[in-house]
Amino acid sequence: MQTPPAPPAPPVHIRQATAEDWPAIWPFFRTVIAAGETFTYPTDLTSEQGRDLWLLPAPDRTVVAVDDAGAVLGTAKMNRNQQGNGSHVASASYLVDPAHSRRGVGRALCTQSIDWARARGFRAIQYNAVVETNVHAVKLYESLGFTVVGTVPEGFHHPVHGYIGLHVMHLAL
Amino acid sequence: MQTPPAPPAPPVHIRQATAEDWPAIWPFFRTVIAAGETFTYPTDLTSEQGRDLWLLPAPDRTVVAVDDAGAVLGTAKMNRNQQGNGSHVASASYLVDPAHSRRGVGRALCTQSIDWARARGFRAIQYNAVVETNVHAVKLYESLGFTVVGTVPEGFHHPVHGYIGLHVMHLAL
Repeated sequence: MQTPPAPPAPPVHIRQATAEDWPAIWPFFRTVIAAGETFTYPTDLTSEQGRDLWLLPAPDRTVVAVDDAGAVLGTAKMNRNQQGNGSHVASASYLVDPAHSRRGVGRALCTQSIDWARARGFRAIQYNAVVETNVHAVKLYESLGFTVVGTVPEGFHHPVHGYIGLHVMHLAL
Repeated sequence: MQTPPAPPAPPVHIRQATAEDWPAIWPFFRTVIAAGETFTYPTDLTSEQGRDLWLLPAPDRTVVAVDDAGAVLGTAKMNRNQQGNGSHVASASYLVDPAHSRRGVGRALCTQSIDWARARGFRAIQYNAVVETNVHAVKLYESLGFTVVGTVPEGFHHPVHGYIGLHVMHLAL
């Protein structure tokens, strides 16, 4: 007897986030930020602070990933990385509900942000601070063409692993 | 006959900047930012925008370099580079009046920011976006122990040199 193949992951849809989505984002947002393992945000961020830094006004963009029933599975924000003569490079951040990991939500969000940056005429995407022990994310980014430009030694104080590196990652568009 | 030695550079003093210093900072600040060769700020920054982003409230710090007569020769700001579990790394920016270059103002400002970061318990200083053609600055930072962690390819659109790299530079304290 053969092992039956895993069922296909249910579809993930990406749409513009609105302020009305915040109550659905905040529970897993808080969980991920409070864990302090992947973001350089204050781990005791309030809901209001989180909302203000995550839900970006145009021309920047914040999206949610939802399932067929409309449940929010993850979210991404995308923006210019620098101003002035550095404003041709975009950046983005992704946050997936741990209860819905490993079903392609992060990949869908990442792909969407690359499409957004390309459509808006950015020449590249840069991540400024990818925690090196966040291996799942690093592998995902690399699978989409990103490379590690450099690693800031001991740039992150991980609650389990101590002082570890922060990757700067880059994709030319 | 021997060539007489160059006269010693007049002394440079560093002190806390206040809002009252802004009128003395703004003329050369505007010149340097408008040239668009070294900063990723909007090149058409207004005085008010410049003041708001340069004069930082405590615990961050902004200083001016002055001569014996109190004339402002340059300025620096120093701050945390990231929040949360990245908040043990400082950053800093320096801006020297081109009319007073090559007399040690940049070095005095840079040294002061290293001392500040060390005294405040930061474990490192990181520069996020050093324009690679700004060779004088890169050499100064390297002479103080900084290394290039990585270079974001074509991260900066230089008005003369076109798309060039942005160094991420780092000094462990």
